[in-house]
Amino acid sequence: MAQRDFKDLLGKAAADHDSLVCVGLDPEPERFPHHLRDAPRAILEFNKAIVDATADLVCAYKPQFAHYAALRAEDQLEETIRYINARAPGVPVILDAKRGDIGNTANKYAQEAFERYGADAVTVNPYLGGDAVQPFLDWRHKGVIVLCRTSNPGARDFQDLDVGGGRKLYHAVAERVANDWNAHGNCMLVVGATYPAELAEIRARVGALPFLVPGIGAQGGDVMLAVRSGRTPSGGGLVINSSRGILYAGKDEHFALAARRAATALRDEINAALR
Amino acid sequence: MAQRDFKDLLGKAAADHDSLVCVGLDPEPERFPHHLRDAPRAILEFNKAIVDATADLVCAYKPQFAHYAALRAEDQLEETIRYINARAPGVPVILDAKRGDIGNTANKYAQEAFERYGADAVTVNPYLGGDAVQPFLDWRHKGVIVLCRTSNPGARDFQDLDVGGGRKLYHAVAERVANDWNAHGNCMLVVGATYPAELAEIRARVGALPFLVPGIGAQGGDVMLAVRSGRTPSGGGLVINSSRGILYAGKDEHFALAARRAATALRDEINAALR
Repeated sequence: MAQRDFKDLLGKAAADHDSLVCVGLDPEPERFPHHLRDAPRAILEFNKAIVDATADLVCAYKPQFAHYAALRAEDQLEETIRYINARAPGVPVILDAKRGDIGNTANKYAQEAFERYGADAVTVNPYLGGDAVQPFLDWRHKGVIVLCRTSNPGARDFQDLDVGGGRKLYHAVAERVANDWNAHGNCMLVVGATYPAELAEIRARVGALPFLVPGIGAQGGDVMLAVRSGRTPSGGGLVINSSRGILYAGKDEHFALAARRAATALRDEINAALR
Repeated sequence: MAQRDFKDLLGKAAADHDSLVCVGLDPEPERFPHHLRDAPRAILEFNKAIVDATADLVCAYKPQFAHYAALRAEDQLEETIRYINARAPGVPVILDAKRGDIGNTANKYAQEAFERYGADAVTVNPYLGGDAVQPFLDWRHKGVIVLCRTSNPGARDFQDLDVGGGRKLYHAVAERVANDWNAHGNCMLVVGATYPAELAEIRARVGALPFLVPGIGAQGGDVMLAVRSGRTPSGGGLVINSSRGILYAGKDEHFALAARRAATALRDEINAALR
């Protein structure tokens, strides 16, 4: 059996499902339908229902680590990933943990993401530089998704600083990833949908390097603008994440159907923008 | 009973123990003495022995998150922190997790560090900017320790970029923390001992803002140089971390005594440098 490879899985799931949608699995039990809130393993039950309802509509799932860690629910995170692997074996799992630490410790974080949780990719923070990211890059069948220009207002504080001749810090990060860290072809960049001009600038600098794009929906990013600003000339290179807009599209026992409708609508909106 | 306050605890522990030493609790079971390696809760037993041997010699403990997460040992991290709180209630605990995410998720990370684990302080990454750090700052009795100039070679990749007129990115981070994020007086900066010139530069820019200084020992930083470069004019403002140099000073059943000797030697070396 061939080894699971993140970029192969991502490309094939996107093609098979005709979809650039990534569903962010950010469980907030206080927003779950009433009948699930008091279930013994409510997070896992909720996630299973979302996965069942969307598995043929997405190119990736992205559980966000803090939502499990704050609730002492690492076991339900592990089981969610195992469930996705069983239910939708062709759909890669991105662990959104934004790790960043020095070499020795980065090894431990890579072990956590890829061995313990069995994720296919992980998000990382570039602030500590190359040797802090190398232990992740060495897992060449795994994806390493580097924060570049984030979707929040504070992205301006440091990411937008001019590091010489109009080049901004996030340009420097984008180019370092494209020209150096991506030697095994297993990198992506996080670029927020809330800043379409920056999406276009970064696209112009990094060729076909794929982007993970958060920030549509609750955060205010416009799908059409994001897709048109960030796509590659051949019309791909994007993974568009939606969390709350899909998970909490419905509030009652029909929440999974509402999630399916929301995921379908987003997929179709993205595909229309690509045409 | 007054609320536990990170900076009060840190100042009092440093004064009471005449020590700027922080012991980094980075468990690596393969380096434990043989008699502990196969214990059912080896990490907790190891940490308890280290805490028993050093509680009167330190100003803080700093468990590093990845070392627990990679081994699926969050429960032993929780119990280690509870043990420190019971055995050495005056010594604050810094959870070294280098968190960084957008507002909604940053709230969950603050909940994880301060509620679930009961840490007194947490390390955070500044790349995402002010709104990503604010949820931590709002816990004004807790410490927020911001990465500034890290101890690894890759620190040069982005932290040293010139953001205008010779001002580097890490200068910009240091000044933002000192002038803005530290409004409640609960911030510190991480500045590596491996770069003493940078320690001095940052000290010149941020007044008495305290530094957490990793990088002595295994990473090659010189204690005397680091202390003289980073101290405040009144002779404090530093917390000097040592992990491997203390934890693994001995390899046999006398490891705790060896750790005590190493911690004493480091304390004395720091105090000599301050004179």
